[in-house]
Amino acid sequence: MQLDKWSEESFIRYLSEQFAIGKPYVGIGDDAGVIPGEYAESLLVTTDALIEGVHFLKDQISPRDLGYKTVAVNVSDIAAMGGTPKHAFLTVALPKSIESAWLYEMIEGIKEAALRWKLALLGGDTVGSKRDIFINLTLLGTAKTEHIKYRRQAKPGDIICVTGYLGDSSCGLKVLQQELAKTAEINHLILAHVRPQPQPEQGVWLSAHAQVHAMMDISDGLDCDLKRILKSSQVGAVIETTRIPLSAAHKDVCNINQWDPLECAITGGEDYCLLLTAARENYKELQEAFQHTFGQPLFDIGYINSEPECLLYLKKGLPIEINYKNFDHFQ
Amino acid sequence: MQLDKWSEESFIRYLSEQFAIGKPYVGIGDDAGVIPGEYAESLLVTTDALIEGVHFLKDQISPRDLGYKTVAVNVSDIAAMGGTPKHAFLTVALPKSIESAWLYEMIEGIKEAALRWKLALLGGDTVGSKRDIFINLTLLGTAKTEHIKYRRQAKPGDIICVTGYLGDSSCGLKVLQQELAKTAEINHLILAHVRPQPQPEQGVWLSAHAQVHAMMDISDGLDCDLKRILKSSQVGAVIETTRIPLSAAHKDVCNINQWDPLECAITGGEDYCLLLTAARENYKELQEAFQHTFGQPLFDIGYINSEPECLLYLKKGLPIEINYKNFDHFQ
Repeated sequence: MQLDKWSEESFIRYLSEQFAIGKPYVGIGDDAGVIPGEYAESLLVTTDALIEGVHFLKDQISPRDLGYKTVAVNVSDIAAMGGTPKHAFLTVALPKSIESAWLYEMIEGIKEAALRWKLALLGGDTVGSKRDIFINLTLLGTAKTEHIKYRRQAKPGDIICVTGYLGDSSCGLKVLQQELAKTAEINHLILAHVRPQPQPEQGVWLSAHAQVHAMMDISDGLDCDLKRILKSSQVGAVIETTRIPLSAAHKDVCNINQWDPLECAITGGEDYCLLLTAARENYKELQEAFQHTFGQPLFDIGYINSEPECLLYLKKGLPIEINYKNFDHFQ
Repeated sequence: MQLDKWSEESFIRYLSEQFAIGKPYVGIGDDAGVIPGEYAESLLVTTDALIEGVHFLKDQISPRDLGYKTVAVNVSDIAAMGGTPKHAFLTVALPKSIESAWLYEMIEGIKEAALRWKLALLGGDTVGSKRDIFINLTLLGTAKTEHIKYRRQAKPGDIICVTGYLGDSSCGLKVLQQELAKTAEINHLILAHVRPQPQPEQGVWLSAHAQVHAMMDISDGLDCDLKRILKSSQVGAVIETTRIPLSAAHKDVCNINQWDPLECAITGGEDYCLLLTAARENYKELQEAFQHTFGQPLFDIGYINSEPECLLYLKKGLPIEINYKNFDHFQ
């Protein structure tokens, strides 16, 4: 049996069984591990790797963007729990063929992101690699213990929301792979892919609202990530696909190239906005306060029901079949 | 300019300049980052990677030993600061060709080590890799803030000590590479290499003694690691090579194969015992108490002087030239 029979999901499930730990720790399966503090604050810890040939191609992303993205994807995991990112630890494994100018630029990207999110890089490991580049960042953050949001807290009746447009990043990757000529729209999509914008302030704000129940970030695509909430919470969901927010650039580029914009939006991954469920009561007030605070919409795209792990897609109220292949790092 | 012009040292120095941070954090350069808590305890964080083809060869270490070693090397970093390891976060990047039985066994090794040092695995990242195996562990520990030991605290007159035999691990690697026939001695050396025994209890005990000044673990070899203490503390050292502890197995195997046992002991790396400096006053009492508590000797091998970064080796009191090439992950 080869590894491609394993999916990331089943491996994580296996790990969580093998390392089953009692409360008060929350173990494997959320965006970040939670270590409760003695007082009102808890520590959040996340770790994310970017591997050459799997997560990036060296000739398709600048070292500066790569450094920036390494930090951004981890910031997104802390944001997903409602935490504030604070301390970073970096592992870089580099083959000898790497130019030192490339390394300098990669560090510049990490610095830029560290400044932006006020992180301190406190340590790490620098090692050689035989062939491919491996970058791993561990990020520590803090959150008020009672505000932390998990995937297991979705409740039937909840409204499902996202905090940003879906599919731009994966459409940007497609554009890069097909080497399309640059236009303003195409640049927008590439930027979404190489410079993701995690939302830690929004995460902290949302987590402070008791009416927000489950929360995570979208890293592997709406379909894959929503199913994780459904599984953890043992609920189902109905998504109205016409309400999934698509950017104008995404729609334009998909239209010109005859791509299905919904495929990028549902399965694309790497959006790094927040996916959450919120109680229906006073939802309008939450939505307005969010818009007022951040100058960006909170998009509602469906609702939670009580059918365990059942995810239904509608188009203008009528069920539709979604047969896109989900993104999986091991596939 | 290619990366092989950079050494790990200079890259770490560059990072520490780029991410210079104010107190109270202690930044890049010690075995673990220190995040002071609000009360008497601080958080220690370390991260260490094992890369196929650089740190291990897949056909020379069993997956179980590899998993165990991944945990052990990180435990050693926490031990080096005087901390107790507590929470682990694992990143595994695997090519598709890996057998799932290999992965199961690797996880068994991690579990075995986690049980041994009472660690909880709280999360991680599981991803694909194009070709090579990449394993990264981040380990969090705690220590009493006032007990934490750094590399910068060595003082002229201090006695230099190690808590274990040096060179067994690198001699074990040499034995593996040359595929020597198994004997009891050879098995002992291989075990030292694939199952390193970090010393967190000893680290906590030593750190609680104010007469212990600087401390770190030996991961890159006595010569390389002692120079780090000398640089951080701006002091010099004199080592009496005849006092460097060598195991009987190491001496025997070197003798049979006409290898220089001192080369493994001084430059070999991966010993994962502790290297420390302690005030001369009451040193005998410290040494006896250590032996009494742990049933193992605290070996004194030299002393600190005030010549900045000057490391002198003696043989029976007379200066000798040491021209071994130091281990460097980037070379």
